[in-house]
Amino acid sequence: LTLGDPTGIGPEVVVRALAGWQGPRPVVHGHLEVLRRAADLVGVPLPDVTLREPTAGAPFDHPGRAQRDALLQAVDAAVGGEVDALVTAPIHKDRIRQAGFAFTGHTDLLAQRAGVEVAMMFVSPRLRVSLATIHLPLAEVAAALTAARLVSVLRLTAESLVRDFGLSAPRIAVAGLNPHAGEAGLLGLQERDVMQPALAAALPGLRQALGAGLVVEGPLPADALFHRAAAGGYDAVVAAYHDQGLIPVKLLAFREAVNLTLGLPFVRTSPAHGTADDLAWQGRADGTSMARALALAVSLAKRRAS
Amino acid sequence: LTLGDPTGIGPEVVVRALAGWQGPRPVVHGHLEVLRRAADLVGVPLPDVTLREPTAGAPFDHPGRAQRDALLQAVDAAVGGEVDALVTAPIHKDRIRQAGFAFTGHTDLLAQRAGVEVAMMFVSPRLRVSLATIHLPLAEVAAALTAARLVSVLRLTAESLVRDFGLSAPRIAVAGLNPHAGEAGLLGLQERDVMQPALAAALPGLRQALGAGLVVEGPLPADALFHRAAAGGYDAVVAAYHDQGLIPVKLLAFREAVNLTLGLPFVRTSPAHGTADDLAWQGRADGTSMARALALAVSLAKRRAS
Repeated sequence: LTLGDPTGIGPEVVVRALAGWQGPRPVVHGHLEVLRRAADLVGVPLPDVTLREPTAGAPFDHPGRAQRDALLQAVDAAVGGEVDALVTAPIHKDRIRQAGFAFTGHTDLLAQRAGVEVAMMFVSPRLRVSLATIHLPLAEVAAALTAARLVSVLRLTAESLVRDFGLSAPRIAVAGLNPHAGEAGLLGLQERDVMQPALAAALPGLRQALGAGLVVEGPLPADALFHRAAAGGYDAVVAAYHDQGLIPVKLLAFREAVNLTLGLPFVRTSPAHGTADDLAWQGRADGTSMARALALAVSLAKRRAS
Repeated sequence: LTLGDPTGIGPEVVVRALAGWQGPRPVVHGHLEVLRRAADLVGVPLPDVTLREPTAGAPFDHPGRAQRDALLQAVDAAVGGEVDALVTAPIHKDRIRQAGFAFTGHTDLLAQRAGVEVAMMFVSPRLRVSLATIHLPLAEVAAALTAARLVSVLRLTAESLVRDFGLSAPRIAVAGLNPHAGEAGLLGLQERDVMQPALAAALPGLRQALGAGLVVEGPLPADALFHRAAAGGYDAVVAAYHDQGLIPVKLLAFREAVNLTLGLPFVRTSPAHGTADDLAWQGRADGTSMARALALAVSLAKRRAS
């Protein structure tokens, strides 16, 4: 576990998630001073954890350095196999950059350090959604949605449904990039020229690797498919871009959604919210997403170890 | 009322919406043969309506011509002030084009015929969402989202909330185009350079016209705002593009959503679904959206007349 940005809600939601925690004893990468102050804020005893403090102190005077140092320690521990799962509290991009760290997000950092291709999946009670593209201006999405990227995210999604969620015949819907999934080319050509051929070409290999029961449908009109997915019609959706996937996830599960990184050699989850500076250190932050992130991480790590 | 494409679910959902109808006697533009066959399908008597049949017959042999002729008649009646409200069943674009009619959608046709700028709003129990851009490939959205268009849709939305929905101090959220509403420019510049200045410049005039209580917030991150809007935090959302607005509407109200055209000199609504060819003439179509479209049309027409 990391505590994230000391000046955001990360420390508070970690303490809330650990209050009454019955699972394995966590290793927390962060400063005792931050953890203690968060426990005081919430009004609970200091959580019973193994603490790994970064060498440099003064986390509230140097929040960028503090979150960077703790995160890098934690990533090293995960990449080095010292822990089975990594659960990260929110980082503040501007503040971590002020500490001289070219940070574009946990997911990118983990992909680089682990040397693998990854994807972001949001896990919530009624929807699992992975993203084919992530933090891009909308105008750049169409060019970024290559056949290779789409197939890679589809493969990571299918593998996770089998390995992490125990589904022997997962059903995946792929959302079209354009409205009405391009409406036979009238509203965009990427479905016809890129997405459909890529899915058709990839499916036999995926079925060979993951089982003949794998079902992949799409590209489908995004406005209708999430309703069907939420009703149980699909086990996961591959969304073409950030808001296409996050709007339905957050609409149905604003507090419960968890971000799961697919493709890493260890489990990594995080809450699906940011540092929420306007709520920081007021004692009013909601720890549900962090608690779900922690519970999912332990559950997936146990499944992988068994 | 139109019956839409005779080979789609339009005739069936019209008959279902009219079964037990207690409101004003509707004028239906379409063929008796189609209406009768739909009534037989549903197993109800022929609805008690004023029927205006197009001159050319054989609607099942020439469905493109039939839906075109009936639609043009109905639009003339609405533009000419013969009716207070127009409720349209779904048209099939390819089939109507095969009848030599350059149709790009009801909304475009109505804007041309009435000579006004219009916008599309989806009305559902928990969300009202209007669209700043509509049927465009995703890659073209950013360029189409001009300051003038955004302000025009915002104005039409605010006017409708006051005039149609009786709100004296409407609260409107404007969704950012890019993920995280551009994240201060890191994920796109349209929020900073186009949207925010346009909203700031337009607000004083809108408040002067519509009342000082008008609240406009945005551009806001789309993934969080729909949750807040659905919880009652906003009376309407202006979405930047089709799927951004339609995904949340259809997720929460797949059957109940109604399409309302803003800006016309008469009321126009339609169900929020298409011709659904795979369901046509099977007796299994859901008439809820058409019934809601009819009820909303009557309610708004009465309010405007009072």
